[in-house]
Amino acid sequence: MDAELFDGLIDVALKEDMPRGDITSESIIPLDSVSRASFMAKEEGVLAGIDVARRVFEKIDSGVSFIKALEDGRAFGPGDVLARLKGSSISLLKGERTALNFMQRMSGVATKTRTFVDAVEGTKTKILDTRKTTPGLRLLEKYAVRMGGGVNHRFSLSDMALIKDNHLDIIGSVSKAVKRARAGIAPGIRVEVEVTDFAGAREALESGADMIMLDNMPLDQMKEVVDWIGGRVPVEVSGKVTVENARKIAALGVAFISVGALTHSFRSIDISLEFEGRSGR
Amino acid sequence: MDAELFDGLIDVALKEDMPRGDITSESIIPLDSVSRASFMAKEEGVLAGIDVARRVFEKIDSGVSFIKALEDGRAFGPGDVLARLKGSSISLLKGERTALNFMQRMSGVATKTRTFVDAVEGTKTKILDTRKTTPGLRLLEKYAVRMGGGVNHRFSLSDMALIKDNHLDIIGSVSKAVKRARAGIAPGIRVEVEVTDFAGAREALESGADMIMLDNMPLDQMKEVVDWIGGRVPVEVSGKVTVENARKIAALGVAFISVGALTHSFRSIDISLEFEGRSGR
Amino acid sequence: MDAELFDGLIDVALKEDMPRGDITSESIIPLDSVSRASFMAKEEGVLAGIDVARRVFEKIDSGVSFIKALEDGRAFGPGDVLARLKGSSISLLKGERTALNFMQRMSGVATKTRTFVDAVEGTKTKILDTRKTTPGLRLLEKYAVRMGGGVNHRFSLSDMALIKDNHLDIIGSVSKAVKRARAGIAPGIRVEVEVTDFAGAREALESGADMIMLDNMPLDQMKEVVDWIGGRVPVEVSGKVTVENARKIAALGVAFISVGALTHSFRSIDISLEFEGRSGR
Amino acid sequence: MDAELFDGLIDVALKEDMPRGDITSESIIPLDSVSRASFMAKEEGVLAGIDVARRVFEKIDSGVSFIKALEDGRAFGPGDVLARLKGSSISLLKGERTALNFMQRMSGVATKTRTFVDAVEGTKTKILDTRKTTPGLRLLEKYAVRMGGGVNHRFSLSDMALIKDNHLDIIGSVSKAVKRARAGIAPGIRVEVEVTDFAGAREALESGADMIMLDNMPLDQMKEVVDWIGGRVPVEVSGKVTVENARKIAALGVAFISVGALTHSFRSIDISLEFEGRSGR
Amino acid sequence: MDAELFDGLIDVALKEDMPRGDITSESIIPLDSVSRASFMAKEEGVLAGIDVARRVFEKIDSGVSFIKALEDGRAFGPGDVLARLKGSSISLLKGERTALNFMQRMSGVATKTRTFVDAVEGTKTKILDTRKTTPGLRLLEKYAVRMGGGVNHRFSLSDMALIKDNHLDIIGSVSKAVKRARAGIAPGIRVEVEVTDFAGAREALESGADMIMLDNMPLDQMKEVVDWIGGRVPVEVSGKVTVENARKIAALGVAFISVGALTHSFRSIDISLEFEGRSGR
Amino acid sequence: MDAELFDGLIDVALKEDMPRGDITSESIIPLDSVSRASFMAKEEGVLAGIDVARRVFEKIDSGVSFIKALEDGRAFGPGDVLARLKGSSISLLKGERTALNFMQRMSGVATKTRTFVDAVEGTKTKILDTRKTTPGLRLLEKYAVRMGGGVNHRFSLSDMALIKDNHLDIIGSVSKAVKRARAGIAPGIRVEVEVTDFAGAREALESGADMIMLDNMPLDQMKEVVDWIGGRVPVEVSGKVTVENARKIAALGVAFISVGALTHSFRSIDISLEFEGRSGR
Repeated sequence: MDAELFDGLIDVALKEDMPRGDITSESIIPLDSVSRASFMAKEEGVLAGIDVARRVFEKIDSGVSFIKALEDGRAFGPGDVLARLKGSSISLLKGERTALNFMQRMSGVATKTRTFVDAVEGTKTKILDTRKTTPGLRLLEKYAVRMGGGVNHRFSLSDMALIKDNHLDIIGSVSKAVKRARAGIAPGIRVEVEVTDFAGAREALESGADMIMLDNMPLDQMKEVVDWIGGRVPVEVSGKVTVENARKIAALGVAFISVGALTHSFRSIDISLEFEGRSGR
Repeated sequence: MDAELFDGLIDVALKEDMPRGDITSESIIPLDSVSRASFMAKEEGVLAGIDVARRVFEKIDSGVSFIKALEDGRAFGPGDVLARLKGSSISLLKGERTALNFMQRMSGVATKTRTFVDAVEGTKTKILDTRKTTPGLRLLEKYAVRMGGGVNHRFSLSDMALIKDNHLDIIGSVSKAVKRARAGIAPGIRVEVEVTDFAGAREALESGADMIMLDNMPLDQMKEVVDWIGGRVPVEVSGKVTVENARKIAALGVAFISVGALTHSFRSIDISLEFEGRSGR
Repeated sequence: MDAELFDGLIDVALKEDMPRGDITSESIIPLDSVSRASFMAKEEGVLAGIDVARRVFEKIDSGVSFIKALEDGRAFGPGDVLARLKGSSISLLKGERTALNFMQRMSGVATKTRTFVDAVEGTKTKILDTRKTTPGLRLLEKYAVRMGGGVNHRFSLSDMALIKDNHLDIIGSVSKAVKRARAGIAPGIRVEVEVTDFAGAREALESGADMIMLDNMPLDQMKEVVDWIGGRVPVEVSGKVTVENARKIAALGVAFISVGALTHSFRSIDISLEFEGRSGR
Repeated sequence: MDAELFDGLIDVALKEDMPRGDITSESIIPLDSVSRASFMAKEEGVLAGIDVARRVFEKIDSGVSFIKALEDGRAFGPGDVLARLKGSSISLLKGERTALNFMQRMSGVATKTRTFVDAVEGTKTKILDTRKTTPGLRLLEKYAVRMGGGVNHRFSLSDMALIKDNHLDIIGSVSKAVKRARAGIAPGIRVEVEVTDFAGAREALESGADMIMLDNMPLDQMKEVVDWIGGRVPVEVSGKVTVENARKIAALGVAFISVGALTHSFRSIDISLEFEGRSGR
Repeated sequence: MDAELFDGLIDVALKEDMPRGDITSESIIPLDSVSRASFMAKEEGVLAGIDVARRVFEKIDSGVSFIKALEDGRAFGPGDVLARLKGSSISLLKGERTALNFMQRMSGVATKTRTFVDAVEGTKTKILDTRKTTPGLRLLEKYAVRMGGGVNHRFSLSDMALIKDNHLDIIGSVSKAVKRARAGIAPGIRVEVEVTDFAGAREALESGADMIMLDNMPLDQMKEVVDWIGGRVPVEVSGKVTVENARKIAALGVAFISVGALTHSFRSIDISLEFEGRSGR
Repeated sequence: MDAELFDGLIDVALKEDMPRGDITSESIIPLDSVSRASFMAKEEGVLAGIDVARRVFEKIDSGVSFIKALEDGRAFGPGDVLARLKGSSISLLKGERTALNFMQRMSGVATKTRTFVDAVEGTKTKILDTRKTTPGLRLLEKYAVRMGGGVNHRFSLSDMALIKDNHLDIIGSVSKAVKRARAGIAPGIRVEVEVTDFAGAREALESGADMIMLDNMPLDQMKEVVDWIGGRVPVEVSGKVTVENARKIAALGVAFISVGALTHSFRSIDISLEFEGRSGR
């Protein structure tokens, strides 16, 4: 991972947490005090953000050594060491919270994604994310989805074309919508259409849609539509997908299942920075 | 709420979701199409972020009218309308996801806070937040905590003094730590000390701590310490606090209970933008 | 055109041309002097950038009135008035050069694009631009291409997939390249492959390429390939395309012709700001 | 050349071309693939921008080695190698277009400037540029003018004083304009006046102008004016200057000839990045 | 004065003084409380910065009315009202210190400048400032110099040419220095040379210097040099100039006296915001 | 001192003084000329800003060596060397003025602070600064106060609570103000109240103020109040404090004396960069 991509965000986070330094640590800890510490998992999960954590300390104090014990994308259990740090005690204390705030959330996303990926294991179906991400952190959260084994759907309204129910309500015709999209959108981009029933899927396909999203469709209807499409274009399923029903949906042969909860309702994974020892006064 | 304070973040979010516009809507929806839509709650919650949502649309298109039906801090139930919008269909479609990404998360924080505030209702105890916030969104999440009825603890390492276990491990003495902090920190700031047992609390108080945090202490021990302190300084309790045990802790007469989960493990509240009608071609 | 999209660039340009005002005009022209002036074409062309020019003056002085006489995308001849301005003489003098520097270049791109679009008129072929744009001005130049009647190809290396000769040299196999691209790239994006001969085109198509670019191919060979593909995927032609041969290429039935020269070797169109009259001291 | 001066612009250009990386190369090229490549000229020209190209790669990947074969300001012919690169294949592919977009344009400006400089060789006349530069790229284009052997005229409306026809129309009197400019402008700056005939030149000189610009004047009239001024102040000629008539103008003994076309109608010089070899999987 | 020029600096100052609002006022003053207040001088001075003060309040709360009682450049005495404000009490309290921090310093510079300008009144000599300004506030301080009646010398190392003793020590020859400067610097800029004795002045003039600065020269020697130059180029005097000796220097007929102390050792003028009344709860 | 904290400000200052380089030095000094120079004090003072000066040169040219001869906070006398530099002559000339503009002002603040600190030596009273700082330079000036031996009071309206006369005028009751402040402000912050007489002090203390500021009170009244408070809360004295009366105030046993003049009416300390030798052409 090229953590420098996230330098802007890391700078914002450090400025937010330390506009004028750490007044407690700077007042009471000697400048020459040196500590060792480890990032340790307190529960099971999939790691994401270890390089962001490393970069946090690099920016605070280039003298802190940060040795990764695990790479992003790997699973861990309670008690597992994720990285070992050594350096100025003050620097370690300064970076602790910001590094954890990144790593705990990112690992939360990766861990949630992995449960869905595991649920469809052995099928050809891939787990997609959505645009339901934390404002300003989309790239970071989509990176975490990849670490969990998921595939990224569109990054923004500018980079892919998805004709949704609201568009169709307004314009009133699938075929008109697809035609206009195809004419107005760059040739390298597919036109995907969201449909809610068989008729919609048929109209979309016949209008030239390159990809079809089945939204909130009952499983049996979904099967009917997927069978009828017969692989002519990739099919994505979205809406009310749970770890429980994901496998059944995958078994229908759909190419993609998209899950908003990967980024909008994950839980932070419990990780802590354990100070192991120190030298100095 | 002065939503302009968050203009920087809103700009980042809009740039993130629309670096070059909404290619789908711009291709297929006529420029002169006008729609009405409402933000509608799909479940119970406490509102936060309605002015951020308003500001999102203001920035996209000053011609969109946005009428709030509810103010931040108010509770709502499923089906409740939060705001009514009218304007260019394209503009409404462009702002929908970004406005929701803010409002659903912020309402999630406010809702979670309210459950804790309700749990200690009738006592003098206040619910505090922590620094366990999403990187870059701290001000926004702390605002949401206030909307839920909570009180903000420190905003950063620069604005208050909290001597934690790691500090004490390194420096080795509570009284030395408190003395140094008092000498090095601005006169207008209290020195708070985190302790885990009776001895620590006694040493902190006798060293001149202005405020004491009891971390992860069993309830009976907590009671003993609180009784001994007897109101000489405010007491804060932190660690493993749940909605279930919060009331018992409050009953001991502590001034504050701090809860990291307010901002690190809230769940997005389900809200959607319902298009009600439209005019135009 | 939403000229506010280009505010960042306009700000840079104004700062560049006036870090501390216009020392000549501010020294010698009375503050209350008012002038009328017109942007007038000195040669034939297609207009692009009139809203950027308007925005330049809006930013300098909101009291300047700027009445467009022509919209972007329209053709003009020598002597045609493009816009009429009235306002503070100093403000008009301050914005003159910056507005012209934008509008002359953008109209240059639009005009060059139009000659290619005219050359293929009556066919189904569309004229595409490339990434050979002026650093920092890509959005502006691609807008100008649209005003000339062209269609935008990819905006960056991040938003579409194009496997070029250098990729193939390195990876050594078209089918491996297409397979990897399909697996690694978001589902909404087509995989395009650049080929230079029949064998390449065949391998690309059989590997699952969604779009094929014929690079620097002789016309007869191009015809053979296009006929063989037979509309199964869209075909783009690139390399050594001139206004002279564009029609012949289009006649083969290709979907797209891309022309780097639209943005890398256009000529500024001659436009000037003619002061018509003035009032005041 | 201190390419770090242009870091802001290079960052914008890289962000523009790779907001989220190079999705094609990153999907299909192995991370450990290494390539050698050379920037090679495809036609004659004068080099400018080689350090900007170097800096582009430095910013993408500090592991890329970039050995200049030629320095800015030197002439080259077709087939000449300008620089040799070795490094990660992905990094080379990422920087290729952005580096070329800078270097081809800058060399275009330098090459065009050189043709004018050559035309007046042996005289004391210097070739000046103007403010007719690409918005945001003025410093870069003026650097390229110097590489071609030209001299930079003013960088902005803030740093030199030039009283033009529009000023005179508004204020109505050369002597009033010069007097006001002299009083209002910093002592270290000369006051230059643009004139179109003998009477104007005489009035300007007698009013105390420090420098006179003859705009669009016929050659014989120009001679009369230059002879009359007799070296009392430097003379600049502007308007309708071509490579053909530049020498005749220079022969009159003018100090400067300014040419807008240096920056507003140059042509990109054809340069390409040729991949020479590679190692790795 | 166009106070929007200083928006960047005003934003920095407001952010610096209120990263998260005014916690005191926001806690204790009712939102609907309205106050009247006046900026009142406590001592004599020359006003500068009244529009910056106005802009400070405009940015905090567009509902605050700010009526100037005096314009920049005008003298005032103790008790004089400079501006009258009415608006939200909280908004007035928020802007008070920042507005004063600007206005007191700027008026300090203007007042100091005026004493020097008064000292040379009746002569043709003008008072110049220097580059000895507060980092980041140069434009603001140079504006204040103008309000005091002074003239601005160069704004930076980039916009005028001044050959100083250090340059001459390094290069060893005045005539070489002048020649190189003339060749390398834009034609619209004068070449000024700093000299410390008669020989230096003679060499500078004979080398073609456009302007000569006499640095730290005794009055009689200064007279000798000024007489010898005899108006052929403008003369500037600098070093150890006081209000006391300025008139004698001016009497020699020099064009300019530059005074570093205008910006490096002014004293803030005492001004306060007096709350006159209020309404509301 | 971590001078990188001030990088933003240093960048602004360098950009302000060299938007396009040093045209004089770059024209006349050979690129390979190397000089030695020393920062030398011309009068007595206390040093502050030596690391900012070092950082200025580091940013201009990493090849310049900068050896500190004295650390911030140390006193110096005329002729003392503060730092020794060696490097490119052009680089030394470029950084000279900016480094001095920082160091002379910061040392001015430190020196002024030291005179007050010396005046109360031997007492327990500490010297505090105020918010009367130069816009944009607050952190830098507060750092200089610390170097002079002072203690920083609040950094902004956001980080401490001070109820002033204007607040009380508006709200009308000390006890209401203190109660509201205590409820609305984070628990870690003390509530300080400014009072002007005995009655005010009594009301403040009885209302629960954590700290009391005596503003512009006569010495005998001050004594009465301080005695009555008897150490129950810390007392701060402000208003009309001079080096002369500071000791008498301190003798009353107050904890703090705050002095606005530390930052609003200091004088720059005279320091210069003396070029000692040079090599090269």
